[in-house]
Amino acid sequence: MTNDVSWLDEINWGKGGLVPAIAQDFKTGVILTLAWMNREALKLSAETGKAVYWSRSKNRLWVKGETSGHIQLVKRIRSDCDQDAIILTVEQIGDIACHTGRNSCFYLQLEKNQWKVSAPIIKDPKLIYKSNG
Amino acid sequence: MTNDVSWLDEINWGKGGLVPAIAQDFKTGVILTLAWMNREALKLSAETGKAVYWSRSKNRLWVKGETSGHIQLVKRIRSDCDQDAIILTVEQIGDIACHTGRNSCFYLQLEKNQWKVSAPIIKDPKLIYKSNG
Repeated sequence: MTNDVSWLDEINWGKGGLVPAIAQDFKTGVILTLAWMNREALKLSAETGKAVYWSRSKNRLWVKGETSGHIQLVKRIRSDCDQDAIILTVEQIGDIACHTGRNSCFYLQLEKNQWKVSAPIIKDPKLIYKSNG
Repeated sequence: MTNDVSWLDEINWGKGGLVPAIAQDFKTGVILTLAWMNREALKLSAETGKAVYWSRSKNRLWVKGETSGHIQLVKRIRSDCDQDAIILTVEQIGDIACHTGRNSCFYLQLEKNQWKVSAPIIKDPKLIYKSNG
């Protein structure tokens, strides 16, 4: 049954074979990240239990947290009525999903026609990525 | 100040001038929908306080709930570190965001290599859309 990947064919892969994938914290419900997945990324996320995305900037598969150690352990995988988007319910290791050292990437809030930083830095990114310059 | 829309220019509009927009219930934290916005949709969502998206299938602006009455009242607008995705925190009128009559569009859950329906229909879509055939 491990080779039964027909469920992957049910996803309506978009342009470039990608769909948006939301990671949501399984304890707090906080939306941590929105990234992109191709077929292989979703397959690996399901098989390994760690969130794997397609990096559009690096143009390669990307194990979330591969450098920082802040991996996302996959608790549940859901899709929507159109099967063109994914939610991963995750345990966010280190409670830091954002490369800026914040819990969530969605830390900019619109207030009076301005984007305001609305969440604290938990850990200095220089300390998170220190071994990688 | 109502003409100050420079905050819209800070968004990194993607292919076709669109970014993904997540709607999250302000009370429950449930992720209701993932839709798409262009500049005008985001501007109207902010100005009117009702979620407006760009429908890729209809190829036009789409006031969420325009037919069903299940509009989304916008409580908060957030963006992420890359400014290429949006979260609307919303009050979902009728508690139904999905055209299938469910609370959330994300009702398919992966279990043993199969997508299983994991949420009940709250209201028969035939009753929701009855005036529109």
